[in-house]
Amino acid sequence: MFGANSGKNGTIFSLWAPYCSWVNLKIGDERIPMKKDERGYFLVEVDVTPGTKYKFETDKGEIPDPASRFQPEGVHGPSQVIPTDFSWEDHDWKGLNKNQLIIYELHVGTFSSSWTFDGVVEKLDYLSDLGVTALEIMPVAQFPGIRGWGYDGVYLYAVQNSYGGPTGLKRLVNEAHKRQLGIILDVVYNHVGPEGNYMGLLGPYFSSKYKTPWGLTFNYDDRGSDEVRRFVLENLEYWIKEFHIDGFRLDAVHAIVDTSPTHILEEIADLAHAHGKLVIAESDLNDPRIVNPKEKCGYGVDAQWVDDFHHAIHAFITGERQGYYSDFGELQDIVKSLRDTFVYDGKFSRFRGKTHGKPVYLDGCSFVVYIQNHDQVGNRGGGERLSVLVDEERLKMAASLYILSPYIPMIWMGEEYGERNPFYYFSDFSDPELVRGVREGRKRENGQQTDPQSEETFKSSRLSWNVNQEILSVYKTLIKLRKEYVDCKRDAEVNSGDMWMTVNKGKLLTVFSFKPSVIAIKGRGKLVMGSKSFPREITGETRFEEGFGIYMREVEET
Amino acid sequence: MFGANSGKNGTIFSLWAPYCSWVNLKIGDERIPMKKDERGYFLVEVDVTPGTKYKFETDKGEIPDPASRFQPEGVHGPSQVIPTDFSWEDHDWKGLNKNQLIIYELHVGTFSSSWTFDGVVEKLDYLSDLGVTALEIMPVAQFPGIRGWGYDGVYLYAVQNSYGGPTGLKRLVNEAHKRQLGIILDVVYNHVGPEGNYMGLLGPYFSSKYKTPWGLTFNYDDRGSDEVRRFVLENLEYWIKEFHIDGFRLDAVHAIVDTSPTHILEEIADLAHAHGKLVIAESDLNDPRIVNPKEKCGYGVDAQWVDDFHHAIHAFITGERQGYYSDFGELQDIVKSLRDTFVYDGKFSRFRGKTHGKPVYLDGCSFVVYIQNHDQVGNRGGGERLSVLVDEERLKMAASLYILSPYIPMIWMGEEYGERNPFYYFSDFSDPELVRGVREGRKRENGQQTDPQSEETFKSSRLSWNVNQEILSVYKTLIKLRKEYVDCKRDAEVNSGDMWMTVNKGKLLTVFSFKPSVIAIKGRGKLVMGSKSFPREITGETRFEEGFGIYMREVEET
Repeated sequence: MFGANSGKNGTIFSLWAPYCSWVNLKIGDERIPMKKDERGYFLVEVDVTPGTKYKFETDKGEIPDPASRFQPEGVHGPSQVIPTDFSWEDHDWKGLNKNQLIIYELHVGTFSSSWTFDGVVEKLDYLSDLGVTALEIMPVAQFPGIRGWGYDGVYLYAVQNSYGGPTGLKRLVNEAHKRQLGIILDVVYNHVGPEGNYMGLLGPYFSSKYKTPWGLTFNYDDRGSDEVRRFVLENLEYWIKEFHIDGFRLDAVHAIVDTSPTHILEEIADLAHAHGKLVIAESDLNDPRIVNPKEKCGYGVDAQWVDDFHHAIHAFITGERQGYYSDFGELQDIVKSLRDTFVYDGKFSRFRGKTHGKPVYLDGCSFVVYIQNHDQVGNRGGGERLSVLVDEERLKMAASLYILSPYIPMIWMGEEYGERNPFYYFSDFSDPELVRGVREGRKRENGQQTDPQSEETFKSSRLSWNVNQEILSVYKTLIKLRKEYVDCKRDAEVNSGDMWMTVNKGKLLTVFSFKPSVIAIKGRGKLVMGSKSFPREITGETRFEEGFGIYMREVEET
Repeated sequence: MFGANSGKNGTIFSLWAPYCSWVNLKIGDERIPMKKDERGYFLVEVDVTPGTKYKFETDKGEIPDPASRFQPEGVHGPSQVIPTDFSWEDHDWKGLNKNQLIIYELHVGTFSSSWTFDGVVEKLDYLSDLGVTALEIMPVAQFPGIRGWGYDGVYLYAVQNSYGGPTGLKRLVNEAHKRQLGIILDVVYNHVGPEGNYMGLLGPYFSSKYKTPWGLTFNYDDRGSDEVRRFVLENLEYWIKEFHIDGFRLDAVHAIVDTSPTHILEEIADLAHAHGKLVIAESDLNDPRIVNPKEKCGYGVDAQWVDDFHHAIHAFITGERQGYYSDFGELQDIVKSLRDTFVYDGKFSRFRGKTHGKPVYLDGCSFVVYIQNHDQVGNRGGGERLSVLVDEERLKMAASLYILSPYIPMIWMGEEYGERNPFYYFSDFSDPELVRGVREGRKRENGQQTDPQSEETFKSSRLSWNVNQEILSVYKTLIKLRKEYVDCKRDAEVNSGDMWMTVNKGKLLTVFSFKPSVIAIKGRGKLVMGSKSFPREITGETRFEEGFGIYMREVEET
């Protein structure tokens, strides 16, 4: 095992550092020589108390533990041995059911004014009342400074100090489980952030063959990769065993290149499943291999994000055509995504300059859909939420579309009550070169209008909690309807005209009209929720003004 | 289609050059403007006669055609329109049968004193008499200069001028087919040689994400990759249609990284199969995915080379342990490879510093085995063939081992008659930087004792044709035995002791003894061929001196 773990006679410290010829465990001024084994691990067992701070002194320099469980003073400071005696009270937690997932994505730092896990705990009753079944927590692995999205984490095993550290996370999971809320943790296995990353000095942790736009990528298929894979797999297991995490969102798996006979994603999925946990991938590949089960030659990941679904809705309702939205914009893209998941499933993408994707045939709960998320909001120059881009009617239409789809819906924090604050990219690097690079890069590539390094940018990204009760009530109703009437089966019947679309899923018939239209309705339906102008009851040729309506179909008596 | 092809009213010239803003077809002093289409192709149809030389004049410089059919003056010279009216006489050719493959690998330049395809034609009767069923021709795509192995080819569609150009190759295929010999062409789709390679100026032919040790690698999965994939796939089809090539040996597929939903290898295999042709991969991955059929989640490549089998035999019989041989050397490695194909099928490799491979379960004709090939001989510092490393007895043992195995045997030119000339790496680059790099690299990495650039190195690598009749006769007998008694089924029974091994495959029982041993023989057998000291008939506990014997099993009367 990597890092500091309980042994028979104390704590075993284990550092994989094949490049080093000697390593001392350094506690205060004390230096304890470690012994190297044939695989390149340096080991020593020492009797220490939780709270003990340490570093490793090596012939490559003095460094924190790459598998540190806590970095109380940040990425450059010493590592700390943590207590593992948390009093769990989640014995009644039933565990996540993939088919009942309704996810709520949140960023701990901006969710509440306290910046911490405890700030999230305070809102658990609210979230439980909202009706979501799992929280997806943006990455908590220790990143540089106190403000950040978390994707530049450098200590995979250490919970961010400014969020409340490991005990804070345990409290959150414990309280969530007591309310039958699951916790999905966003984990980054495609790269390690640039600042505070000392691993490259110690061994071939990083690939010399592949690169990512964000930094060094793990070495999954070259010399030394057995240990690197173990480093990642043990990390997953650590979150499960030590923190009772229920599922994982794997960041940008398209940036993981692995030519091994067994892809690391397959091993990750296998390991999670062995513990009864879920794995969700962020994938830009539109490649069924990610989510297909092994029998269908896939990696067996439980579900993946579907950006195509987001882009189709966003481009259509906002009229935006910049960047990747240039590949979207037609109502038929939404229809296609509702029917076949990927809009690009073997079609030429002008934005990508190549044919993209492959058809996928799986049930709806293999896919996560959203109309907003941290990326889609935060990578915009103005960090604009959808609430400031379209009117309330469109917001509700978009919400109905995805929450009542056969896919797993994911709500972006604040979306459910019409939050209007921006969500910017923010960071807190200290390396001056890096700071300059991030500032310039964000301005050039995302047109970001605020300084990502300033505390102001971070603060203005926090949720205001100015609740729009009407929108909140729509979300609650949609979630209730989903829970009662919508399952993952791909049996939705989608019909469309030039500027209208109907989705019939089980007992629900949702009508979307983007200009006044006459639509032939099969059977009869009674309005459950929808635009004021929409008829209460519908049957046969029906005229709809612009708007939407969710109808309960009346079962024909036979 | 890429390059110069027949159109309705003349020859259509087609160049994919999205980076260029204008292109002229230049014939002599005449400049004919070409028209760019939306995918980045420049096109023009001109009435020209075969033999017409041309270049493309572009805003990026004047360049030969990347899809040139002939480079009469080498890689830097003009391209030439070739005649396509060859009189084929191979109507009676039955085509290659994977289950009856016995391959003979040859390098055109050193096979005969004439350096040419016609020099190979002269030996076709000899090869037919030897009993092989297919010739595997080392790459013929135009490479720099007149001497080279061919892996630095830069014009994928142009047959090497110094070998006799396209018509020479057609004559060879035609004559081979008339003798019921198939032609497998070695094609390099993992990189393009460094000298004379102008493609990078024209468009995203090459990957910016991945690299190979030998040069730029094709862009199979990024912007523009649709056209690059087409460039490669059309190339394969060109060899089939224009040259009647029967199969392909894909060079070093482990150097092809493709994250597309459908791997380029799968597309290559599909295309070859659509034409009834075979695809054999050189793969260093020990990954069943390469050869597994689609139902088993593979790419469906027909067969792959098995270096493990070579290394197991080579290390054991020579005692060598340098480089990759350090992972081999035990008799049990040979036993393992006979039973399971890959010796490393999930085992830690010290040489690679990681766990390597995955078990594979396919019939023997999905694998090509050899005790010598151009790499295993030519990448040695002294270019030594096995004939100068071990005595004749060991040579014959090794030959029996692989030719009578359930795998497809491949003979390296000259091996069959005990050729003793070396086979060195040789090249004929003109770029001074490159020349220096190759000289130093070969000395440093391979310990090559001769100058790869000198004509002498090339000349000393040619076959002497000093035939050792005894060895030739052994090979002929082995090939006859294989044809009569050995199939691809994985039903061989391999038994072994400390320093002996028996292989029972169908009616043949082969006994290998590396020191005097007593071996229990089930049933009875009569010697067909073997060491002088070996008993003529065997049954029960039998004592064998050092040596080998191939026995025909007597069927028990019941």
